[in-house]
Amino acid sequence: MVGNDMDPRVSVGLIGLGTVGTGVAKILLENADLIAKRVGTSIDLVRIADLDIQKDREIHLPPGMLTTDANALLHDPSIDVVVELVGGYDAAKRFILTAFDQGKHVVTANKALLAVHGEEIYHAAIRTGCDLGFEASVGGGIPIIRALTEGLAANHLSSIFGIMNGTSNYILTRMTEEGKGFQEVLELAKSAGYAEADPTLDVEGGDAAHKLAILINLAFGTAVHIKEVYTEGIAHLSTLDFAFAREFGFTIKLLGIAKHHEEEVEARVHPTLLPSASPLAKVSGVYNAIHLVGDAVGDVVFYGKGAGSLPTASAVVSDIIDIARNKRRGVSGRVPPTSFQWTQRMPLRIRPIEEITSMYYLRFTVVDRPGVLSAIAGVLGEHEISIASVLQKGREEGQAVPLVVMTHRSSERAVQTALDVINRMPVVLEKTILLRIEGAEESPLMKEDH
Amino acid sequence: MVGNDMDPRVSVGLIGLGTVGTGVAKILLENADLIAKRVGTSIDLVRIADLDIQKDREIHLPPGMLTTDANALLHDPSIDVVVELVGGYDAAKRFILTAFDQGKHVVTANKALLAVHGEEIYHAAIRTGCDLGFEASVGGGIPIIRALTEGLAANHLSSIFGIMNGTSNYILTRMTEEGKGFQEVLELAKSAGYAEADPTLDVEGGDAAHKLAILINLAFGTAVHIKEVYTEGIAHLSTLDFAFAREFGFTIKLLGIAKHHEEEVEARVHPTLLPSASPLAKVSGVYNAIHLVGDAVGDVVFYGKGAGSLPTASAVVSDIIDIARNKRRGVSGRVPPTSFQWTQRMPLRIRPIEEITSMYYLRFTVVDRPGVLSAIAGVLGEHEISIASVLQKGREEGQAVPLVVMTHRSSERAVQTALDVINRMPVVLEKTILLRIEGAEESPLMKEDH
Repeated sequence: MVGNDMDPRVSVGLIGLGTVGTGVAKILLENADLIAKRVGTSIDLVRIADLDIQKDREIHLPPGMLTTDANALLHDPSIDVVVELVGGYDAAKRFILTAFDQGKHVVTANKALLAVHGEEIYHAAIRTGCDLGFEASVGGGIPIIRALTEGLAANHLSSIFGIMNGTSNYILTRMTEEGKGFQEVLELAKSAGYAEADPTLDVEGGDAAHKLAILINLAFGTAVHIKEVYTEGIAHLSTLDFAFAREFGFTIKLLGIAKHHEEEVEARVHPTLLPSASPLAKVSGVYNAIHLVGDAVGDVVFYGKGAGSLPTASAVVSDIIDIARNKRRGVSGRVPPTSFQWTQRMPLRIRPIEEITSMYYLRFTVVDRPGVLSAIAGVLGEHEISIASVLQKGREEGQAVPLVVMTHRSSERAVQTALDVINRMPVVLEKTILLRIEGAEESPLMKEDH
Repeated sequence: MVGNDMDPRVSVGLIGLGTVGTGVAKILLENADLIAKRVGTSIDLVRIADLDIQKDREIHLPPGMLTTDANALLHDPSIDVVVELVGGYDAAKRFILTAFDQGKHVVTANKALLAVHGEEIYHAAIRTGCDLGFEASVGGGIPIIRALTEGLAANHLSSIFGIMNGTSNYILTRMTEEGKGFQEVLELAKSAGYAEADPTLDVEGGDAAHKLAILINLAFGTAVHIKEVYTEGIAHLSTLDFAFAREFGFTIKLLGIAKHHEEEVEARVHPTLLPSASPLAKVSGVYNAIHLVGDAVGDVVFYGKGAGSLPTASAVVSDIIDIARNKRRGVSGRVPPTSFQWTQRMPLRIRPIEEITSMYYLRFTVVDRPGVLSAIAGVLGEHEISIASVLQKGREEGQAVPLVVMTHRSSERAVQTALDVINRMPVVLEKTILLRIEGAEESPLMKEDH
């Protein structure tokens, strides 16, 4: 895979001509001149493999460029870079590993694959001396992978907070702004083309968890398997929670959160209350934003379109350009796909959710009767959970009413144990809703004790 | 400058141990282990030149590391990378060019130098085959240079909007939030350490103009000299303007603005009214944020600390890491300092301010008397300036009152010509205040005609 200086041109083979693949073809064809001016050599899209070569894709491809045979492309010695955009696990992984074995560099947007089989793929790239680009796997067009591996490489990173799934953020934004329920907004998102027919991966947090696993690898130099990321979605959120959050000055976002503690890492995706004035709380619609904290740089936030054909393709092509710049100089492997050198990574324990501490929003559904608050507060107190504020609405003696408690920083295990007790109390009519709060340490609300 | 594979270690010489230099030394010493794990080789700070070697800088340096002789450092054959942090023009330029002639790579944070002598310095880097890193010259720790040269390299960039000076943004934020006047807040900024004794470069827009010139070079592949950037500061803004802006739903920010039009580029720094809901309007205090628009990626915003010892040093060290990764592979010049290949750049005309179009905020100081609005509106109409909305405050017959007009998109020349006429009208008591508006094309306020 060391390039030939006599022929610095770079030939690209693309597998998968779906939404992102079409965007990649479009950019490589339409911006070819611009790219050549930047790189100093041309990047030629020579072959595209897709199972459906009849479909009209609104781009004009030269005749003969399309094939149904991915293997022919993978074994074509004239191809330098293989772009894998078929998604999924088995076939995609086979294509990538075959490409490496053929001495070809690989660019992919496949976050699910990297979150599950990342270690095997990263190691194959390093072993074969090939480059692997996956800027498009997180944050669409936002250059967040490069930020972690290069721009912020001087920093010990301490945390990552990210809105990394556009569909769920679109739904949460409409629920926040319009006061509508989850199911209603989900249907609206589907008809607007912002949610897929099966939205499970987006609304249950799986997609965000894939992306978080990839970022943790780069930020902290440790492998994390998707199974180790605590993942909770947004389907159980009620309009009540949005109204109460607002009343306390918070906005609900589905966040991917990672924190580095000495020998451990927190890795969790869940709906989170953020102070409404914080930068992430203001990210609306299908936009993504990722907030990193480093020991030298402090806070940095990256914001942009997290999905879509051209934004994601922008990231794919940036990786191809990177490889072309390497090939022109006859090198590869400048920056390892693990950011840290393979032998210099350190396995860190992923801290189970029970062991974290956080501030909590607890919404109890209780019978409106004197003494209920004191009973619940008593159980919380026994478990050393300190209350920051309380909101009790409605005044209909004997009816079910919501009672909201915001806690100071407490242990998750203590909170879960206390809720087990509280949920069994006869005056508690429904399972208590627990939401975690981030970024409110400085809020006056959370500082004073009530 | 092609590295020796037998000795991949990288030796750094630092010239200038001020605020940023101290931060660089601190990161290189304290994060040495982290950096070596990422790069695969160690980066050794071997020599520091500063005129004042007695000063206590709160870092522990090995004995003998400090010297007053920059030339000894520049001619030390063991040094691979020279970090120039003395600032200013003549000496800094001489150090950088000497380093290149000695086959050394250079990292600098000197935006003033690059905005004035960039072409000479960029060309010297390319001619000698050395790398030049200047991530720290714009946006402190925000990796904006890499975003333009690498992460977004697949895009035709169409515009740049940036809050690129922390001091002026700190002042504007306090003026907005506290309703205080410029002079009062400037004094507060000085005592808080956010403004220098001579704040001219910050509050008159010069510093932002330097940074904008650097970004234009990378984004559009054309050289722009600082003299061609239209520059207006914030010292003339009155508390009245902040109050009116807020009433119309706008926030005043000092923006660096660049727009690409076919064969021309707009390049201007001036106080700007932004819709209060836009991402840049919400950037407060000493933070910087840069909003880029590309044809594939759409809108991307980068946010972080734009100044300070460690954030700026984070960017300096990221450049050193980049050079170390190149040296380890025995290459340099992967990405030219001009982003575009030197021979592939195209001189674009910098559009003079008179030739731009914009929406305008015009604050007239007039005698409160019937017919005044109609007279002013008449002159605007004669110059084909269409009014979007009008705000007239106070009702004290015969007294001086402010009259604010927001215009639809108009030609700057027409507006300036109309103001020449209006400013000479006897009912107009003071020179009219003109502020440009950005990002309001979609605002309902600016759409309907009153």
